[in-house]
Amino acid sequence: LRRAAGAVCAAGRELWTFSRNDPRKPVYAAKVATALALITLLVFLREPSDIVSHSVWAILTVVVVFEFSIGATLSKGLNRGLGTLTAGGLALAVAESARHMGDQDIVFLIITTFAVGFATTLIKVHPQMKLYEYGLRVFLLTFCYVTVSGYNTGEFVGGTAVSRFLLIVIGGAVSLAVNIGIYPIWAGEDLHHLVARNFARVAESLEGCVDGYLTCMEYQRVPSKILTYQASDDPLYSGYRAAVEAQTQEETLLGFAIWEPPHGPYKMMKYPWQSYTKVGGALRHCSFAVMALHGCILSEIQSAPENRQVFSAELHRVGDEAAKVLRELGHRVKTMTRLSSPNILSEVLHAAEELQKKIDQRSYLLVNTDRWGEDTAASTTTCSRHEAGAGASRDNEAPPPPSEHAVIINIPPMHDSESNTSLARIASVNVPPLHKSESLARFDSAASWAAMSLADGLALKPQGSWHHRMPPFHPGQPLEAAESRTYESASALSLGTFASLLIEFVARLGNLVNAVEELSDKAGFKDPVEQPSVL
Amino acid sequence: LRRAAGAVCAAGRELWTFSRNDPRKPVYAAKVATALALITLLVFLREPSDIVSHSVWAILTVVVVFEFSIGATLSKGLNRGLGTLTAGGLALAVAESARHMGDQDIVFLIITTFAVGFATTLIKVHPQMKLYEYGLRVFLLTFCYVTVSGYNTGEFVGGTAVSRFLLIVIGGAVSLAVNIGIYPIWAGEDLHHLVARNFARVAESLEGCVDGYLTCMEYQRVPSKILTYQASDDPLYSGYRAAVEAQTQEETLLGFAIWEPPHGPYKMMKYPWQSYTKVGGALRHCSFAVMALHGCILSEIQSAPENRQVFSAELHRVGDEAAKVLRELGHRVKTMTRLSSPNILSEVLHAAEELQKKIDQRSYLLVNTDRWGEDTAASTTTCSRHEAGAGASRDNEAPPPPSEHAVIINIPPMHDSESNTSLARIASVNVPPLHKSESLARFDSAASWAAMSLADGLALKPQGSWHHRMPPFHPGQPLEAAESRTYESASALSLGTFASLLIEFVARLGNLVNAVEELSDKAGFKDPVEQPSVL
Repeated sequence: LRRAAGAVCAAGRELWTFSRNDPRKPVYAAKVATALALITLLVFLREPSDIVSHSVWAILTVVVVFEFSIGATLSKGLNRGLGTLTAGGLALAVAESARHMGDQDIVFLIITTFAVGFATTLIKVHPQMKLYEYGLRVFLLTFCYVTVSGYNTGEFVGGTAVSRFLLIVIGGAVSLAVNIGIYPIWAGEDLHHLVARNFARVAESLEGCVDGYLTCMEYQRVPSKILTYQASDDPLYSGYRAAVEAQTQEETLLGFAIWEPPHGPYKMMKYPWQSYTKVGGALRHCSFAVMALHGCILSEIQSAPENRQVFSAELHRVGDEAAKVLRELGHRVKTMTRLSSPNILSEVLHAAEELQKKIDQRSYLLVNTDRWGEDTAASTTTCSRHEAGAGASRDNEAPPPPSEHAVIINIPPMHDSESNTSLARIASVNVPPLHKSESLARFDSAASWAAMSLADGLALKPQGSWHHRMPPFHPGQPLEAAESRTYESASALSLGTFASLLIEFVARLGNLVNAVEELSDKAGFKDPVEQPSVL
Repeated sequence: LRRAAGAVCAAGRELWTFSRNDPRKPVYAAKVATALALITLLVFLREPSDIVSHSVWAILTVVVVFEFSIGATLSKGLNRGLGTLTAGGLALAVAESARHMGDQDIVFLIITTFAVGFATTLIKVHPQMKLYEYGLRVFLLTFCYVTVSGYNTGEFVGGTAVSRFLLIVIGGAVSLAVNIGIYPIWAGEDLHHLVARNFARVAESLEGCVDGYLTCMEYQRVPSKILTYQASDDPLYSGYRAAVEAQTQEETLLGFAIWEPPHGPYKMMKYPWQSYTKVGGALRHCSFAVMALHGCILSEIQSAPENRQVFSAELHRVGDEAAKVLRELGHRVKTMTRLSSPNILSEVLHAAEELQKKIDQRSYLLVNTDRWGEDTAASTTTCSRHEAGAGASRDNEAPPPPSEHAVIINIPPMHDSESNTSLARIASVNVPPLHKSESLARFDSAASWAAMSLADGLALKPQGSWHHRMPPFHPGQPLEAAESRTYESASALSLGTFASLLIEFVARLGNLVNAVEELSDKAGFKDPVEQPSVL
């Protein structure tokens, strides 16, 4: 008994915190209770037994029709009313025909019931009829009820149908009056806020992914909830997942919002709710790019921290600017203001271009160059490999001892006329010794990177399924040089993948901006008056 | 009138094709109709007016409870029965108390109704209560009804509740008997087939993406349905989207399947339906990787066809092997057989390794090497750029005129002791003139690629929003050299991105295999007897 009391207390506390977190839920509950109390009062006040014996229909209507949002209530109420009306009419006609049939009336009624039941159910399960499912259910219910009771009680038929319909109308009217009169909850408003809110959540995820990537965040063990795409508390993951998962909710809310009359800031007939879901869809398309970025963090093949640092400023800037654009768009959608200028993307595009240029200049960091010459000059490769090993034993932070640098340029095949200049050009590429410019530091970092990623290759996370299953790999045993080189190159490329996915995200922003602009046009967003406040 | 007749005809044809496509739907409709006809017959046969006046409850129960799958029918029926029973008990107690209250009974009843309505609705909207939502609705409905009619009719209370409950039991029993007796449709079976079928759909999408990428498939204009993640007929897109979208359906079916008794091949108490949704989730995680691959095809930045050809065999093999693994896993899940050996992944991992090695050897195709030396030796870059332009004017197919080749190796900084050997090494890298080996052809293709991608950069799809919005870009005008170089490098990198996303997909397959193995263990899949038939 004490345990039961404890469970009840726990449930009560849970309900209390639940109500505190979303005050609209207890308000809704109070509204339903008020409508029920009103109906009960009505039943008690009016004493005709005809009404009382059918009072169940008013109560049933309130319980069934009173939904969370006004759109849902309206849609269910209309479905219910229409279903009852048409079914009542049809059933009366059927009952009337049956009365003139003599002995075979029961057979006729049963066959009719079967036929109507079959047709209604078949229509109900058709995907296009989803909006009217409830109406069809009510139609079938009413038809059967009126047929049966009409047959049994003879004359009462008309009276039953009318008083029943009257009580349904009363129940629906009370529901609607209470629902709109007290603290109205509009599905359209919910849809609007849902779409607007997800912008900020995707922006958080994006920033988190870029930051996490640059700080070399790693999952000791990727949560199995992420691997099976279930809800998880991971902040990087929950942000974009919320935007992806919002789809079902957006569609449901859209189905209700189209029933709602113009209200509040949505003062237009045929308000373009559809466009909100389109914006939600475009945001979802962007979220999938963030998901791919997160995939780079989840992946077992990781690039070396040194390399990431080289691109850190540019990646950061693209991530920040893209998040800023997302937040700005979300703010515009939320406050229903137009974009102040068409150049909302100019900053982020510039940042992406800078990143692209940096990649262009430093793309040697994105590939493993060790084996390039292998087919043509195996000896050189062995040499450079040996040096990479030597580099590993050196302190990475200390400046390298002065040395002669051979700079690496891809020189395509030349025409005969130019062949005699090629040696001279190679000579000109050699940086004079002791010249400690920025370019020298760059090559040093390249060398230390080669060494690091080799070590990285040896220490690749042993718990990963990838390595476990790779036939020649054994976690405890040192890898062979060829395999470790392959992983070096994979890990180097992973940085390039991250960067190009980030650029792809920026490209998708354009599509999102288009969707928001279409929404602004169709929904008649107001022009921004004050200085646009960048969040 | 004729138009109305036409519309009815069209609707009829639509229903006919709909029924032909999924015969289970008309069967379900026929079952509902049969149950309704049975109930009507029952009502007509038994003549006591007490039963007849309450016969609505039996009909209502059939209409409301008879769902498509047996699990859903059971779950709704139990909810309905329990809700009615508890609410009836509570309402009788309340009505009894009210009768001893004298004048204030109406006030007491209304306050009780309000309190019960509030509490029930609040519990109903709690997310954890979703399974019992219908039961709570019925509870509230019954409570109000019995309270009101109990107050009004005095003694009838007990009789009403009992006969109502009896009729609900009859309605539920008829529904369940018809539903199980005639062509049963199990939610668990649906869940099983849904999960198994999606494997093949993802495999198709994957093959389509790899093939499309290698044949340089391009969207003239990306369908806006894809950009807003709506349903579309695109075969590449619909495959992985089906797996992603299946989530809601899987969860719904899981909610019904757990109510179903052991049946058919699922002959275990507490059958692990949860594991099926986990497999579905792991497949979804893989689908997101396919989605990222498709993103590479949708992207405006595309790598040159020549480059893709270089990796064609390897990419193809990885795609084929991965699709084979997916189909094999789907077949295993469908036929409920264990994996015959733990090495199902060995082929695809080997293929991925080969791809990785190829990338390692040819990674110069993935980056734009033109600007590597720019900081240190600008003059050389100009030179090589000039040559790329010259290469472009040459016929790409014809063998190049014999020339001296400077091969490109990344030589990290060296120690002093080695500095004197560097010039000699550079000399050794030069391929002797007139030596038409495979390596020569390789460099030729590299050169022609550089020329091609330059042309590509100039002819980048003008309708894309990316380029429209890029400030210094004007579709009609030739790009400046720096920008076109940046796009060359981006387009070169995009091939690397595709390859590494494909490898990431292979890595995620491991997770999927784990999920399938977990399912085989928990659900006691049978061991394969015959030679495993690879589909």
